Amino acid sequence: MSDETKDNNAAACPIPAQDHRTVQLAHGSGGKLMHDLIERLFLSTFSNPALSAQEDQAVVEINGVRLAFTTDAYVVDPIIFPGGTIGDLAVNGTINDLCMCGAVPVCLSAAFILEEGCPFAALEPIVATMQAAAARTGVQIVTGDTKVVNRGKGDKVYITTSGIGVVEHPYTISAASIRPGDRVILSGSIADHGIAILAARGGFSFQSDVRSDTAALHSLVQTMLKAGGKGIHAMRDPTRGGVAATLNEFAAKARIGISIDENCIAVAPAVRGACELLGLDPLYVANEGKLIAIVAPELAEAVLAAMRSHPLGQQAVTIGDVTAEQPKFVSMHTAIGGWRIVDMPIGEQLPRIC
Amino acid sequence: MSDETKDNNAAACPIPAQDHRTVQLAHGSGGKLMHDLIERLFLSTFSNPALSAQEDQAVVEINGVRLAFTTDAYVVDPIIFPGGTIGDLAVNGTINDLCMCGAVPVCLSAAFILEEGCPFAALEPIVATMQAAAARTGVQIVTGDTKVVNRGKGDKVYITTSGIGVVEHPYTISAASIRPGDRVILSGSIADHGIAILAARGGFSFQSDVRSDTAALHSLVQTMLKAGGKGIHAMRDPTRGGVAATLNEFAAKARIGISIDENCIAVAPAVRGACELLGLDPLYVANEGKLIAIVAPELAEAVLAAMRSHPLGQQAVTIGDVTAEQPKFVSMHTAIGGWRIVDMPIGEQLPRIC
Repeated sequence: MSDETKDNNAAACPIPAQDHRTVQLAHGSGGKLMHDLIERLFLSTFSNPALSAQEDQAVVEINGVRLAFTTDAYVVDPIIFPGGTIGDLAVNGTINDLCMCGAVPVCLSAAFILEEGCPFAALEPIVATMQAAAARTGVQIVTGDTKVVNRGKGDKVYITTSGIGVVEHPYTISAASIRPGDRVILSGSIADHGIAILAARGGFSFQSDVRSDTAALHSLVQTMLKAGGKGIHAMRDPTRGGVAATLNEFAAKARIGISIDENCIAVAPAVRGACELLGLDPLYVANEGKLIAIVAPELAEAVLAAMRSHPLGQQAVTIGDVTAEQPKFVSMHTAIGGWRIVDMPIGEQLPRIC
Repeated sequence: MSDETKDNNAAACPIPAQDHRTVQLAHGSGGKLMHDLIERLFLSTFSNPALSAQEDQAVVEINGVRLAFTTDAYVVDPIIFPGGTIGDLAVNGTINDLCMCGAVPVCLSAAFILEEGCPFAALEPIVATMQAAAARTGVQIVTGDTKVVNRGKGDKVYITTSGIGVVEHPYTISAASIRPGDRVILSGSIADHGIAILAARGGFSFQSDVRSDTAALHSLVQTMLKAGGKGIHAMRDPTRGGVAATLNEFAAKARIGISIDENCIAVAPAVRGACELLGLDPLYVANEGKLIAIVAPELAEAVLAAMRSHPLGQQAVTIGDVTAEQPKFVSMHTAIGGWRIVDMPIGEQLPRIC
C-alpha cells in the first residue's frame, strides 16, 4: 500500500490509523508491538548472542565466574499503590529478572530520573521501601545516579535498577531448553498487580482492595532448584502482557506448542470482578510476584511439592503441557469446555504498570 | 529559622527563596545540592561501604573476581549535538565510570524510557551511535529494557546504561588513596562538552563550532596503568560540575588540600570565547572525554609521558599538587598572578548536559 493510499484510508476511517513513524504507548506493552520494536531497533543493531537470547537477563562468563546481568526501567503510575511503591517494585523486579535463570542476586544499582518539583515527601518512602526490599533479599544497592529533568519532562520519579547475580548451577535455564512433554507450572493466582495499579489510578467507579503481588522470588527459585535441578528448563515472571505474553514468548522461542487449562489458573475473586467490570482478560494482566516454570515431566511433581512448601508458592499448580503439535501457538481448554488460541497481545491493555 | 520566618522572608524578597521541600533542577547539577541530596536521601538509607565510597563505580568481589559495577541515567537535551548523541554519550560515560577505577569494561546494559510520539527517525541514529561506541570499545550491550511514557511525561528518550568491568590490577584506585605530595594530572583541554550542548540548544546569539569531547577513556587508562601501576592513586572524569567539582570531591573525601595553576589548564579558544560571552567559568563546565588522575610524585612523569603517547592524552599536563595544608579546599594560582579558592559549585550552571 502506498503512503498516499494509507493516508486516504486513514481519512475515510473514523479510527485514527496507527502512526508507524513514532513511538506509541503500545510499544511499551510487553506485546507484539514491543517485540517488533525491540527486534527492529535494538536486536538488529546491538546484535550479539547474549542479547538475542531475549531472556530477562544476560548470562556472561567473566574469569570463570558465570554472572547474570539485567536492567529494567520503572515508570509505574502512580508511584505509590496498594501493596508497594515504584521503589520496591524496581528492586523486586530486578531481583526476579536475575533469579529467573537460577542466579543468586548479589548487588543492585539504582538510577533516578527526578522531575523538578517532585516533593521529597513522596521520594522518602520510595527510597525507604527500596532499601527494605533489598534488605529482605540480602542484597545491597552499591552504586547509583541521580538526574533531574525540567517540570513537565518527567513524572515525579523514574527508577532504573540493574543487577548482578551469580549462576552457581551448571544448567542452562532458558526458553531454548524447553522440550515437548514438559509441564507448565504457575506459582500462584494471577493479575493482582495490574488490577491494583488500575484501581489506584482513580477515575474508576469501582473500589478495590486488591494489592500488588510485588515480591522477590529468589528464595522460591532456590527451593525449586534444590528439588528440580536440571529438570527446570525455563522460568519467567509474567509481568507486562501477563501469563499470555510469557507463554507466547516461550512458544515462539522454543518453537513448541503450549496447551493450558483455564480451570487450573487461579484468579482472586476481587481481581476477577474488576477484570469483568473493565473487560480485561486476567491472562493478559501483569503480575510482579509470580513465576511460570517449564519443568521436565519426571521432576514436575518434586518441583511442585517444593514450591508449595514456600510461602510464595503455596498456590502453585500445573496449568498445562508443552506439545510438539501447533508449534509457536498457545492454546487453552476454557472453563466452559471449549478450546481457544491465547494470542500474543498486540498493544497494551494497561500502560505504565511497571 | 522557623518555617514561618522563612515564608515571610520569601514574600518580602523578589527572588523566590529555594523550595526545600521539592526537587530542584540544581539537585541534578553535580554540585553541593546534589551531594546533599545523595547523602540525605540515598546514602543514609541504602547505607553500605561500596556506596558510601561515592566513587563513580562500586567494586565488588564475586567468587574471587573483582568486578566494577556502575550505572548512569542520561537525560541530555538535545539528544543529538555536535560531536555525539545521547546514545554514544551514554555508552562512553558508562565505560569511563568503569575504567576510572582501572577496570577493563566487559559488558553493558541499556534501559530506554521513550516518550510517546518520539519519531523513530530520531531514535535510529541514537541506537546506531550507541552500537558504534560500544564496538569501538570492544564491549557488547548484552541486556536491555524499553518503557514508553505518555506524551508530556518524558522528553523523547532517556537512556540508563549500566556496566560491568573486571579489575585485574591489585591496587585501590580511589579518592581514599590520595596522599599529600601527589601530582594532579589533567588529560586535555576542558569545557568542550558543556559548551557544545549549550550551543546546540539554540536560542543563543552565538554560533559555535565547538564539538562535544565525548570519548571512551578505557585504553588511555590501560596505558596509564602500564606506566604508573601503583602510583595511580585516584582517577575521575570531570563531568557534571566540571574540574572544580571533581577536585572538590577529591579534597573532601581524602581530607587533603589541592593547589592548581590556572595557566596549566588548556581551554580551546572557541570554548573560552563562549564561556566569556555567557559568563561561565570553564572550570565548572562539563567534560565527557577527559580525566583527572592523582599520581604519586615519583611516577607522575612516567604516567604523563604514557598519556601523551595516547591520542586521547596528547595534551595531558600536571595542573597542580596535593597538599597537607588547607585540607578539603581547592585553591588556584590564577592567570593574573593571584590566588583564589575554587569552591564546590552549589547548583547548576547548565542543567541536563548529560
